[in-house]
Amino acid sequence: MRGLYIGRFQPYHLGHQVVLQKIAQEVDEIVVGIGSAQESHTQENPFTAGERVTMIAGALKDLEATCYVIPLEDVARNAVWVSHVRAMIPSFEVVYSNNPLVVRLFTEAGVAVKRPPMYKREIYSGTRIREMMLSGANWEGLVPEPVAAAIKEIDGVDRLRTVGKDDGG
Amino acid sequence: MRGLYIGRFQPYHLGHQVVLQKIAQEVDEIVVGIGSAQESHTQENPFTAGERVTMIAGALKDLEATCYVIPLEDVARNAVWVSHVRAMIPSFEVVYSNNPLVVRLFTEAGVAVKRPPMYKREIYSGTRIREMMLSGANWEGLVPEPVAAAIKEIDGVDRLRTVGKDDGG
Amino acid sequence: MRGLYIGRFQPYHLGHQVVLQKIAQEVDEIVVGIGSAQESHTQENPFTAGERVTMIAGALKDLEATCYVIPLEDVARNAVWVSHVRAMIPSFEVVYSNNPLVVRLFTEAGVAVKRPPMYKREIYSGTRIREMMLSGANWEGLVPEPVAAAIKEIDGVDRLRTVGKDDGG
Amino acid sequence: MRGLYIGRFQPYHLGHQVVLQKIAQEVDEIVVGIGSAQESHTQENPFTAGERVTMIAGALKDLEATCYVIPLEDVARNAVWVSHVRAMIPSFEVVYSNNPLVVRLFTEAGVAVKRPPMYKREIYSGTRIREMMLSGANWEGLVPEPVAAAIKEIDGVDRLRTVGKDDGG
Amino acid sequence: MRGLYIGRFQPYHLGHQVVLQKIAQEVDEIVVGIGSAQESHTQENPFTAGERVTMIAGALKDLEATCYVIPLEDVARNAVWVSHVRAMIPSFEVVYSNNPLVVRLFTEAGVAVKRPPMYKREIYSGTRIREMMLSGANWEGLVPEPVAAAIKEIDGVDRLRTVGKDDGG
Amino acid sequence: MRGLYIGRFQPYHLGHQVVLQKIAQEVDEIVVGIGSAQESHTQENPFTAGERVTMIAGALKDLEATCYVIPLEDVARNAVWVSHVRAMIPSFEVVYSNNPLVVRLFTEAGVAVKRPPMYKREIYSGTRIREMMLSGANWEGLVPEPVAAAIKEIDGVDRLRTVGKDDGG
Repeated sequence: MRGLYIGRFQPYHLGHQVVLQKIAQEVDEIVVGIGSAQESHTQENPFTAGERVTMIAGALKDLEATCYVIPLEDVARNAVWVSHVRAMIPSFEVVYSNNPLVVRLFTEAGVAVKRPPMYKREIYSGTRIREMMLSGANWEGLVPEPVAAAIKEIDGVDRLRTVGKDDGG
Repeated sequence: MRGLYIGRFQPYHLGHQVVLQKIAQEVDEIVVGIGSAQESHTQENPFTAGERVTMIAGALKDLEATCYVIPLEDVARNAVWVSHVRAMIPSFEVVYSNNPLVVRLFTEAGVAVKRPPMYKREIYSGTRIREMMLSGANWEGLVPEPVAAAIKEIDGVDRLRTVGKDDGG
Repeated sequence: MRGLYIGRFQPYHLGHQVVLQKIAQEVDEIVVGIGSAQESHTQENPFTAGERVTMIAGALKDLEATCYVIPLEDVARNAVWVSHVRAMIPSFEVVYSNNPLVVRLFTEAGVAVKRPPMYKREIYSGTRIREMMLSGANWEGLVPEPVAAAIKEIDGVDRLRTVGKDDGG
Repeated sequence: MRGLYIGRFQPYHLGHQVVLQKIAQEVDEIVVGIGSAQESHTQENPFTAGERVTMIAGALKDLEATCYVIPLEDVARNAVWVSHVRAMIPSFEVVYSNNPLVVRLFTEAGVAVKRPPMYKREIYSGTRIREMMLSGANWEGLVPEPVAAAIKEIDGVDRLRTVGKDDGG
Repeated sequence: MRGLYIGRFQPYHLGHQVVLQKIAQEVDEIVVGIGSAQESHTQENPFTAGERVTMIAGALKDLEATCYVIPLEDVARNAVWVSHVRAMIPSFEVVYSNNPLVVRLFTEAGVAVKRPPMYKREIYSGTRIREMMLSGANWEGLVPEPVAAAIKEIDGVDRLRTVGKDDGG
Repeated sequence: MRGLYIGRFQPYHLGHQVVLQKIAQEVDEIVVGIGSAQESHTQENPFTAGERVTMIAGALKDLEATCYVIPLEDVARNAVWVSHVRAMIPSFEVVYSNNPLVVRLFTEAGVAVKRPPMYKREIYSGTRIREMMLSGANWEGLVPEPVAAAIKEIDGVDRLRTVGKDDGG
């Protein structure tokens, strides 16, 4: 059985990792869909899809399930989003998501959806990690080691700090 | 004479209905343009264009003018919007609108614009009706009966409540 | 029951009309989807969606079924086309089409498809009518009278002759 | 040597003019890129690209450097924006910008970036000038004379006041 | 008075130059619109918009009229193309074109169109010059000297020869 | 070292497989980019990106290099294509391609390109395999076994035969 897990992964963190480990106990293969793949160099989405593929692939090496890591560009209309996703990834039987819109759209399309328990979301959250990066707090412990290494290699924290600054327009 | 009346109709309500009844006294044919047709499944735009066509067509059955109900997808640039609309609908002589941008764009293009008096806008407003749907208030009396029936058939209130929830990021 | 009939209608002709009359005996309501709605002013697609709405609405006045005439812009990818169509028009139970791609896409999506017998296709064909317009042959008898009138009002034959000319580039 | 200077120029003002005069002392030719060229008729972007070309060309007549004034439509993804700009304008050796995102994107692409000192930004700012237009304050002195004339000719202040009004939804 | 002259200019040649010289006797200012600006690296459109701006600006230096050289990206729909062009360039009173579609679209929009006599089109033609580049014939004499220089600087003939080759698929 | 290998893989065949085996001897990791990812259900591109991911992942299981299989949607302009690819995939040092346009675009961008010897291209070619599928010839031996299985599971040959038929329009 194949399952789909979608996130923006800005960045991929240990909360994602724990959820994927649980999913790996339920399905043989996991498609990890990287949402908003076309976005990068913004406060909300600092990393490119390719950078996120690199982070995630490094972190998934020990996972027991076979993983497909696939960038998913946004489409401008919710009503076709499910068929867009289906066309871009291998066929799947179940979606794992806690995003209400994602849950709704797949449910309306007749796809089975499971809501994986989120792992310590007050600690492991992309928004919080990006804020820690901006404020200089110690964020490295919240992500798998290969993710921290990948972010350092691309000078990711500096990019995040730069792109959001006001230009005094 | 043919007139154009544009709205997002999220949902179509009795305020729209009263305005259309007045327009029907001035023109023989009315084009009802459904704006932001590509949007759906959001807090601002919960219903698809097709669902809105269904609602409106049901409500217009007793109107004396001939009506064309046409979905209009957004174009990303205001400067070409008037010619986009003109290409998608039958030719018309007058636009009925109170939206300042719509009024401005058609006026700059040399099209006659009339501002129909809005009907009890503090009561009949799409924003207010969606808020009532979210809070569980009694909204059904604010829309024509066929609209209420169409929204129930697609479980529209539940959709609206779902799509706007935060996912705890 | 509601049925969907899709065409480009460049222009709408008596072959379409005969098929719609037969469909009207099977369903209560018909959605007439105008394909490639964003196209106009080309040899293949001389008329805008709005002009085609006008032609078709005139021709459908005597049809016994309730008709919805809805422009459908192309989407660039076949895999999401069915959900695009579904989002733009009222819900339907059956599609009437002889276009192999349309038949395939709806069938893969689990929608019932019927193939209406085409009416004298060697005579009634959009391609043939456009060629007759170009060559000066008598095409008016192949379309409903309101269609011929609409084409004349917009000087449609002259437009068709103009847009395809080579500029000697 | 050729330099690139990018702005939205809503409107072009004396702060831009002073910066360009300094750039003109460093390079022989300047490409003035008009960002968000597809935008118009909004509070943030009231003027079309063509109107901005007209304003800027009028103001640049006395500048010593050769100027190319080029509209640049936005592309939806930051990661390709630098190559989009490069494809649309003559080749250049240096970018002049204080916008953090622009600086970052060109720097990551290996292009030399200089940060020109901004001229009295608390006075000369597009945002402030648009606010003065809205409030009826005297803004004409903050822009070159040809810019003020161009804005008057298109009735630009009236447009700005109109497009942002709420329609009472 | 301001006139508009549109072409793809792949490449700009002496035929264009002669036409512009005649237009310069009729108007004070000329907008040179570079069509299909987003295209490059194909057999039909080898040069980027920026490269074409460079070529044209070099060739126009001796022209008596003030010239604006503006890249124009294609829009996918003919029905909005005129308003797209109008939004991107300074306002104009007359269009100079021999392209039947361009003539038709501006005429339907109520814009005055003049058809400038083409100059020895059997000799000066973009298609013919690209064929000469491919076959190794001597094309340099057919373009203004700055154009030939610009093409050499970017190794343009080699690019043209490369991009069209079949890959044996 | 990481290498990039791009193709449309309609379908993936033994010619691709042999080339990838040779690449695997030169680099540690290979990114397999699936071009024209948004295309499907046409004669040229019958299979969705997701279906192609499934085919390729099955065939790559025994390859010695680590592989990333990434769908790449087309962008409409050649001049930004290299940065689009770079943003979507992990960073790479060398591109393997025989497509002249791909070679040219990466070379102009300063990326190292190697031309892998094609393997019996008169036998192993996507075009030829699709023609064999259409004519009923025995194509299964030209693709890896998992590819043949995947195509059968989605009834791919029947899809290919259907989508290209003329509708007698």
